[in-house]
Amino acid sequence: MKFSRFLFEAEVHQGVVTDEGIKEIEGDIFDRWMYTDRTFQEDDVQLLAPLVPNQIIGIGANFVSKKEDKPDTPPDIPVFFFKPTSSVIGPEEAIIIPTEINEVKFESELVVVIGKETKNISKDQVLDHLYGYTVGNDVTAPQYFHEDGHWMIGKSFDTFTPIGPYLETDLDPLNVSVKARVDEVEKQNSPTDLMIVSIEEMISYLSNVMTLKQGDVIMTGSPVGAGMVTEGSLVECEINEIGVLKNTLVKA
Amino acid sequence: MKFSRFLFEAEVHQGVVTDEGIKEIEGDIFDRWMYTDRTFQEDDVQLLAPLVPNQIIGIGANFVSKKEDKPDTPPDIPVFFFKPTSSVIGPEEAIIIPTEINEVKFESELVVVIGKETKNISKDQVLDHLYGYTVGNDVTAPQYFHEDGHWMIGKSFDTFTPIGPYLETDLDPLNVSVKARVDEVEKQNSPTDLMIVSIEEMISYLSNVMTLKQGDVIMTGSPVGAGMVTEGSLVECEINEIGVLKNTLVKA
Repeated sequence: MKFSRFLFEAEVHQGVVTDEGIKEIEGDIFDRWMYTDRTFQEDDVQLLAPLVPNQIIGIGANFVSKKEDKPDTPPDIPVFFFKPTSSVIGPEEAIIIPTEINEVKFESELVVVIGKETKNISKDQVLDHLYGYTVGNDVTAPQYFHEDGHWMIGKSFDTFTPIGPYLETDLDPLNVSVKARVDEVEKQNSPTDLMIVSIEEMISYLSNVMTLKQGDVIMTGSPVGAGMVTEGSLVECEINEIGVLKNTLVKA
Repeated sequence: MKFSRFLFEAEVHQGVVTDEGIKEIEGDIFDRWMYTDRTFQEDDVQLLAPLVPNQIIGIGANFVSKKEDKPDTPPDIPVFFFKPTSSVIGPEEAIIIPTEINEVKFESELVVVIGKETKNISKDQVLDHLYGYTVGNDVTAPQYFHEDGHWMIGKSFDTFTPIGPYLETDLDPLNVSVKARVDEVEKQNSPTDLMIVSIEEMISYLSNVMTLKQGDVIMTGSPVGAGMVTEGSLVECEINEIGVLKNTLVKA
């Protein structure tokens, strides 16, 4: 099932994406919801980020370019980081390049959404704790990375976390490909089995540190091929089974 | 005014701390609230963290030991980091040392609470955007810092962000002292004018990166003297004008 959030006449609605349009629902997608009798056509609405994340966690440099390059054991301490929820935008919204720089980095990613409180779980319990999946673009201004290694400022500008277009609940996250195109040229295209730290490993690891909550999202890392983009570029992040997340770059 | 959140008979209440006890209130402390007719005595309740933060931002190594050591200009990119809201505990709750280690670091800090949406503000507008102040302990397991500089795991364990005991709205944050005692021995005691990046500078800087929201909290850095503590230690973080935040260390 594909959930959507969207604006229509300046109000936020939720719906389920079907061949006939977006069937409106009311309630909590994580819990109880029901259909209303309204159906919207996607051309008539503005899609929003498909959920309002509780927290956003990312993982650094998590893909190899080919299976033979995978390390035999995952790292002792993976490079995780937080992004602020204030950085989230939806499909078609503009990514704003900060005033003092002229380019930022795009990174197409599979985003997983925690469905229920998750603490101290093993790898084989992970998929049961994931509610759904969307596409994300972990936009980054490496010019603002601190020389001592801290990424916080470079990852936190407003508009730096596009997610969408939909939240897909029926997906095998271990068996999809993460793609990106810039101005229609393919830049990234890797299956999720090229992750260094697998989705099961990263979420089991995190759950042994902190309690993950419903609505927490984890951006699971970006394939080889991410790069810098400038004003006017169109970045399309895609996972076939979910959809295409399109955002254009503008200057502040 | 000192706001408090507390548990009484397994329910969460809010109140204003007075000489006669905690006068219960209902509503939103950031907006509209009113007194009920109940007053609780602090001995009869369990104090909780005085607010549920929206997000938590910290700043690294932000105090000098004496004024002469202050750099002439603040750093170009201060070391900021996020802590997860899942790490918050209240006064008197136990700080849990993770299974595989035997000590963690305490850091007493002044915590400032954003009162309204804050974007692109100048230094002289900062105090007007702060709603209140509390005491925090930025507990850290440096054993989990990544060799490339990332602090995320070492800062994110459950129970690693005690805050409290109260949220004080009447305070001059530029003119208080941040103290800590471990097992009754003073370890930290510095006025906030020994900060390298002042409260006005850090919040103006952050607001030019990201939109700060009501309920975001910023831990403003810890004085010289922070150190490691082990099972059984009692850490008391104190700002006279706010109160004492007491937490004991236990093993997982």
